[in-house]
Amino acid sequence: MNSENFLLSEKIVSPSYVRQGSQARRGHEQLIRQLLEQGKCPEEGWSESTVELFLNELAVMDSNNFLGNCGVGEREGRVASGLVARRHYRLIHGIGRSGDIAAIQPKAAGSSLLNKLTNSVVLDILKLSGVRSVASCFVVPMATGMSLALCFLTLRHRRPKARYIIWPRIDQKSCFKSMITAGFEPVVVENVLDGDELRTDLEAVERKVEELGAENILCVHSTTSCFAPRVPDSLEELAAMCAKHNIPHVVNNAYGVQSSKCMHLIQQGARVGRIDAFVQSLDKNFMVPVGGAIIAGFDAAFIEEISKMYPGRASASPSLDVLITLLTTGANGYKKYLSERKEIYSILAEELKRLASAHGERLLHTPHNPISLAMSLDGLQATSDKAVTQLGSMLFTRQVSGARVIPLGKEQTINGYTFRGFMSHSESYPCPYLNAASAIGITREDVALCIKRLDKSLKALKKEGKAARSPSPLASQNL
Amino acid sequence: MNSENFLLSEKIVSPSYVRQGSQARRGHEQLIRQLLEQGKCPEEGWSESTVELFLNELAVMDSNNFLGNCGVGEREGRVASGLVARRHYRLIHGIGRSGDIAAIQPKAAGSSLLNKLTNSVVLDILKLSGVRSVASCFVVPMATGMSLALCFLTLRHRRPKARYIIWPRIDQKSCFKSMITAGFEPVVVENVLDGDELRTDLEAVERKVEELGAENILCVHSTTSCFAPRVPDSLEELAAMCAKHNIPHVVNNAYGVQSSKCMHLIQQGARVGRIDAFVQSLDKNFMVPVGGAIIAGFDAAFIEEISKMYPGRASASPSLDVLITLLTTGANGYKKYLSERKEIYSILAEELKRLASAHGERLLHTPHNPISLAMSLDGLQATSDKAVTQLGSMLFTRQVSGARVIPLGKEQTINGYTFRGFMSHSESYPCPYLNAASAIGITREDVALCIKRLDKSLKALKKEGKAARSPSPLASQNL
Amino acid sequence: MNSENFLLSEKIVSPSYVRQGSQARRGHEQLIRQLLEQGKCPEEGWSESTVELFLNELAVMDSNNFLGNCGVGEREGRVASGLVARRHYRLIHGIGRSGDIAAIQPKAAGSSLLNKLTNSVVLDILKLSGVRSVASCFVVPMATGMSLALCFLTLRHRRPKARYIIWPRIDQKSCFKSMITAGFEPVVVENVLDGDELRTDLEAVERKVEELGAENILCVHSTTSCFAPRVPDSLEELAAMCAKHNIPHVVNNAYGVQSSKCMHLIQQGARVGRIDAFVQSLDKNFMVPVGGAIIAGFDAAFIEEISKMYPGRASASPSLDVLITLLTTGANGYKKYLSERKEIYSILAEELKRLASAHGERLLHTPHNPISLAMSLDGLQATSDKAVTQLGSMLFTRQVSGARVIPLGKEQTINGYTFRGFMSHSESYPCPYLNAASAIGITREDVALCIKRLDKSLKALKKEGKAARSPSPLASQNL
Amino acid sequence: MNSENFLLSEKIVSPSYVRQGSQARRGHEQLIRQLLEQGKCPEEGWSESTVELFLNELAVMDSNNFLGNCGVGEREGRVASGLVARRHYRLIHGIGRSGDIAAIQPKAAGSSLLNKLTNSVVLDILKLSGVRSVASCFVVPMATGMSLALCFLTLRHRRPKARYIIWPRIDQKSCFKSMITAGFEPVVVENVLDGDELRTDLEAVERKVEELGAENILCVHSTTSCFAPRVPDSLEELAAMCAKHNIPHVVNNAYGVQSSKCMHLIQQGARVGRIDAFVQSLDKNFMVPVGGAIIAGFDAAFIEEISKMYPGRASASPSLDVLITLLTTGANGYKKYLSERKEIYSILAEELKRLASAHGERLLHTPHNPISLAMSLDGLQATSDKAVTQLGSMLFTRQVSGARVIPLGKEQTINGYTFRGFMSHSESYPCPYLNAASAIGITREDVALCIKRLDKSLKALKKEGKAARSPSPLASQNL
Repeated sequence: MNSENFLLSEKIVSPSYVRQGSQARRGHEQLIRQLLEQGKCPEEGWSESTVELFLNELAVMDSNNFLGNCGVGEREGRVASGLVARRHYRLIHGIGRSGDIAAIQPKAAGSSLLNKLTNSVVLDILKLSGVRSVASCFVVPMATGMSLALCFLTLRHRRPKARYIIWPRIDQKSCFKSMITAGFEPVVVENVLDGDELRTDLEAVERKVEELGAENILCVHSTTSCFAPRVPDSLEELAAMCAKHNIPHVVNNAYGVQSSKCMHLIQQGARVGRIDAFVQSLDKNFMVPVGGAIIAGFDAAFIEEISKMYPGRASASPSLDVLITLLTTGANGYKKYLSERKEIYSILAEELKRLASAHGERLLHTPHNPISLAMSLDGLQATSDKAVTQLGSMLFTRQVSGARVIPLGKEQTINGYTFRGFMSHSESYPCPYLNAASAIGITREDVALCIKRLDKSLKALKKEGKAARSPSPLASQNL
Repeated sequence: MNSENFLLSEKIVSPSYVRQGSQARRGHEQLIRQLLEQGKCPEEGWSESTVELFLNELAVMDSNNFLGNCGVGEREGRVASGLVARRHYRLIHGIGRSGDIAAIQPKAAGSSLLNKLTNSVVLDILKLSGVRSVASCFVVPMATGMSLALCFLTLRHRRPKARYIIWPRIDQKSCFKSMITAGFEPVVVENVLDGDELRTDLEAVERKVEELGAENILCVHSTTSCFAPRVPDSLEELAAMCAKHNIPHVVNNAYGVQSSKCMHLIQQGARVGRIDAFVQSLDKNFMVPVGGAIIAGFDAAFIEEISKMYPGRASASPSLDVLITLLTTGANGYKKYLSERKEIYSILAEELKRLASAHGERLLHTPHNPISLAMSLDGLQATSDKAVTQLGSMLFTRQVSGARVIPLGKEQTINGYTFRGFMSHSESYPCPYLNAASAIGITREDVALCIKRLDKSLKALKKEGKAARSPSPLASQNL
Repeated sequence: MNSENFLLSEKIVSPSYVRQGSQARRGHEQLIRQLLEQGKCPEEGWSESTVELFLNELAVMDSNNFLGNCGVGEREGRVASGLVARRHYRLIHGIGRSGDIAAIQPKAAGSSLLNKLTNSVVLDILKLSGVRSVASCFVVPMATGMSLALCFLTLRHRRPKARYIIWPRIDQKSCFKSMITAGFEPVVVENVLDGDELRTDLEAVERKVEELGAENILCVHSTTSCFAPRVPDSLEELAAMCAKHNIPHVVNNAYGVQSSKCMHLIQQGARVGRIDAFVQSLDKNFMVPVGGAIIAGFDAAFIEEISKMYPGRASASPSLDVLITLLTTGANGYKKYLSERKEIYSILAEELKRLASAHGERLLHTPHNPISLAMSLDGLQATSDKAVTQLGSMLFTRQVSGARVIPLGKEQTINGYTFRGFMSHSESYPCPYLNAASAIGITREDVALCIKRLDKSLKALKKEGKAARSPSPLASQNL
Repeated sequence: MNSENFLLSEKIVSPSYVRQGSQARRGHEQLIRQLLEQGKCPEEGWSESTVELFLNELAVMDSNNFLGNCGVGEREGRVASGLVARRHYRLIHGIGRSGDIAAIQPKAAGSSLLNKLTNSVVLDILKLSGVRSVASCFVVPMATGMSLALCFLTLRHRRPKARYIIWPRIDQKSCFKSMITAGFEPVVVENVLDGDELRTDLEAVERKVEELGAENILCVHSTTSCFAPRVPDSLEELAAMCAKHNIPHVVNNAYGVQSSKCMHLIQQGARVGRIDAFVQSLDKNFMVPVGGAIIAGFDAAFIEEISKMYPGRASASPSLDVLITLLTTGANGYKKYLSERKEIYSILAEELKRLASAHGERLLHTPHNPISLAMSLDGLQATSDKAVTQLGSMLFTRQVSGARVIPLGKEQTINGYTFRGFMSHSESYPCPYLNAASAIGITREDVALCIKRLDKSLKALKKEGKAARSPSPLASQNL
């Protein structure tokens, strides 16, 4: 309420109580002021009531909520369903304009503010998480793959002749498809085996650059976060190589914001060489629903170019989710999530190690992968051909989600490209294995339950000798 | 509750009352059954409580809501904020998989069901709205422009040599940019003036096809819904031409679902010639928040190809919105919106005509545009150079949203292409004018208020002779 | 947001858009201002967003929502469940203080404002609905019966010697029990039959007064709204009699606010004689959940005395419900409900008349009852003893709720008092009958469905001759 | 969804995923089954989604949510405002029937179930909290005072001659008023000073019983939870005395459920003597909004008599709140709240002791009061007459809520009864003091902030010597 209404209230209930209420309101306003002034994630998280107050204030500024508005356009922010209006806090106009996803909408000052603030708060978090020199970023309501495609499409205008994208292999479909979708030819560079780890074959990359000619290469497309035993790409070296050859460099940092190691690699890459853009998932790093990504970079002009490449308005829903989340957790809350994740990574590693040795398997030694772990399944494989895939099936049934079982020698063709040893990032990884990851939001209970159920399943499979049930088609997929 | 729980309830409250409650529950279940069985929009809208019951049921089927789930993957549908979880009905996993936006997710049977049903219900509505022979469609969480770009990117794989897209001019940025984003060269075909109307220059299109060579043309990119005095493209003739030359044809049907004329054009085009895909906005046709589109077509295989071109999972938010909306309105409710829109179009036309003649202007004669109307501003222009832009500014201030003022001779360059007479779809339209549209959800009150405020503004401007206030930068833009 | 925050916002998005947003906010504030200033129900209903904005503003003023509050008392408005906090808009402190349900709470300026405003808005509605000279009222979170008891308990302090309450018979348990609960002896005055109508036996009342002695009588307890064929008590005459004998007069106006006739009776009674308090249900008159009532009267001091008789704080939930409802409907919306109800009363009467004659029954002639109607069941009774009760059972099963079937000669004992012909307000009403009412919120569809199902049921019963199924225990009760 | 709908879903998405979803649904059903079967508070709290699922299921069973219902009664559970419907989960019919607040409603099987289960769950919690032999209880939507009045009103019918209620003094208005409201004459028995503690004067009670005659005494009305330095009444002795003289005994256990000591006193009292009913607040013990109470006792028949004394239906809102809360916390969660409260009581005592000695005051020695503490203000009083009341004012302004400042010699008249030394439970307590309590839900931060602000305030007051600002009228009240 404004001061006039507070004054009127003093006539109805005692002035001293109203004044205290009015002062309390200023407490909330003060938090909003700091956000508007600094554009940073607040140190301490806001209460739900402050968050909702703020969102209601934003909504009131959008023309579809004007009490006296009359609309004779083709897009007026009308909403047929009250359920829908409410779940979006009556913020209906989305973000951006036809020319630019980061543009301000005349009809929707509140939604525009939401968009600007979200990008600003997210930028702050990227800095806090380790990429201190990031210059600009924006949230886009597309998942990582499509966002990578948008980066490639933007680069096309800078490098009209280029046809190839150099891509150190990582067996995840959407990042591969992002290149296909954008209309480029992926040049797959196989990884090298170093102990248990699969790491970037830098010499092969260099060879490819020379073979194809730098001017024909749109960019190098590298990856940080990935499933063990693959480890993050050698970003420093790749970035330096890109700088040397004047080739753009786009990093798929899908769920890397949650790991200080991944973020450090990007920061270092940008320092010593060239990184044009790095893309990260909203859901995987910020515990929001699937469907958004952050496109970030060290040159604000290039990032703006990408944002202008998105034709038309876009859904504000992912922006709203991440803003609510970060205002609620605050910077401190988010950091706490990160440190807990790290801690549980160690616990998970230890527990898997113990379990592995109890079952005659071993935890693969992949110290450079800060999130994902892999446990060999050699022994299980020995008991029966089907045992490995059966394990996957059993874990699915027992509600262990996210554990992946990787059998040997799977072959898969995607858009005409054939990958031998698919899912293992390698044509011939020495052993079948099981993956488990410590991702943001994981709890000690998740680990305990997973280990318990995994132990039971392994025991059951061994007891059977040859497992009775037929393998499920799910078994070898990432569930 | 299941039957066991109903039985237990009978011991607590009277069996006959519980039985009636249980029977009432079956009423809701029955509605859900019909939806699952037929995959169609229900005739009569559901109550909010049935809708929420259904969404809760879906959510319960997703692994992030399993009571005994333990997650050790990198994407577990965790949500940090309760506000966020609730506003998505705890449906967190989005839609699609890395390979295909229409694919089923093992971790999320509920979200997968949501996705399939939404596409099915939306297909039903497209049929009901006039495109009876549509074969397949899917909702994509991107606005129209980006969705058009996705169609073009898909076509690239079918026509690797093609570089051009033939595009009868329509002055709307995002559809122009969709071609740029996808990496193609737009070939702009100017419209011809026919009375007051601007319509497709079919001969010029034909000439361009011959000039460039069919194999070098990715597709013809035509438009239905548009601002008067432009009218929908001559889809039948274009479709026939495309069939003849074996050129794909993509139709931008942005807000055309709400008009039986636009839908009829598409249906006829597909019947007599070739339409590969037609794309429509969710927000503009279904009164949901900005950010989604429907990609539809007559060949299910091609539509599937597009859906597979989207790399990675995607936000379920637009799908959820449109599903809630259509279940709530029902087919009958939606049809009622359509007929009301049509009725108010006539009222708006009549009122504008009356107003125009009172001010010495005239309603442009554009009978082929079923949604948008234009009123000349010659007289206003005569009073002062700035008067036309000032009118725009005044309407903005008076909360008339969506009315656009189009001055003469504006020039604008977009991605290196210069458009003379920008916003008027023509290099030299004979007069300045004002647009107003009767779009879905418009009310009689909108029309009355708009006419009243427009009348006042025009009077004020004329009284001034020369308007006192300085023109606002907003004046000539689409607010 | 306050002006400082709007200024900051202008740096982030365009000043002119922010200014329009800020102006739009003033639109909401203006509505709130009028409410605070006038304390009246707004003419036009508020939008949901204004209502929620207002409630959030109130909540912010309560100490449990102060960001810097620390609590070391025994009642701090803490809430363990987020679901609970949200459903009460974080207004936790209830209304009133230990001394007085209308008192202001130092800890809760917002809740106090809510309480004061609700009472004020409700008073306005009572005036609008016909009791123009009502002086004061308050909402109490107890249903009508308990609220009547509170009135009687208050009167006890004024009339310590009085033991009797004179009560023209109405067969509804809770108003009878209200006298028992308060510790008084009800003196039941049977009604007189006048045509089909049962009306107040004024002479019998007068006789009782003289017989018992005015000083021994706590009050006369009369009733307006009731089931036909009983009609509202003769309030004018009773009020005059009370004035003459100096006996307090409490009116049970349970669902009478919705009827201009009932309200007129009260207004007239107070004008010509004495009415100390009249009590009405919230749920039955304002379409809110069960559980609240309004205690109103013409002497503010006496009403305050009652409010001070409620020991302790009380739930704000009924106040919140009725305030939300009236702000949402506005005075005009509420009046529209009233006129629709009246209109549907005529339809229901006509339809029942038609149906009755088709089945050889008749609509009882009860023109003085403005809400409830009764249709004879003589013919049905003739077919079988059980047929009348079976009809009740059938209607229950067919989801006709609220229709009551009244067989002949039911006897019931309540708290030691035996009522012959219970449910019919008379020891020996001439015929069995069925009740149906046109109450606020009823729709034409309710009437149509009810008539259809009633017709079917009557036909079925007659076909059977003797009905096959056994009578349900529900049959003769008010469902 | 029922099994038929799950089967249909299997045709749309993969059967194995749907089956897992269906199995997950059974997880929720299982929790509901246990609740229905055992009627106990679940050990572990339910997730929000299970709670909402359950409430939605209940709502579906109420006739106002029947899809095919038609209503022609005067109370049909219609709701005019969607906001209101939603906040009550569409449970509109309240609880109870006209005859009995615990009765089952034919129109509302779901609400009836809610009512029964709430009473059952609450009974379980009373047992867990220490009153193991409690036989029956019910939730009533009235605060403690009005609930006590209802008990007294019920007893009147058992003891028609009785006029007096014997009441060991406790200076809290609503419990005093409850006797006045019910129409009885409170017989105030002053407490005795024992060290710093004020405790029951058992001999005086005995004397009063003999003086007035047992048959003229309605009951003894004792108290457990209270502000220090008063301590809980000597329940065992009072109960024994009541048994001996055959006098009913009603215990005001306002916020005593949270204290094992208070609950133990009741359990012991009932074991060795007579306790007819004990009444506790919902908000103060269960962290729900103000407005409900639990009436409990050891003789189910008497408790039922009270429930039948409530005339008419009642609000379900307090029942809903406490049920949601207890399902969410679970028994373990509730017990954890209790143990934390106890722990923080020790911390608060220690901190106050330290602070007191630093300021030349002392913590009063009141070991028998398990919740409230008192710190002397002798020194402060010495500096200035007004200093004590000013302290109250300062704490209010500094957002320390719930701390009460008790000056010497306040006199207050309530309903004609004059209390000397009001607020101190004694006509002449030796010193002024300040109260602070460790009530359920208190946090360590509350204590830290309170101590800090109290310290600052005391320092400021002493610095002033004579405080500058004028005393606020709030100062001596319980804020």
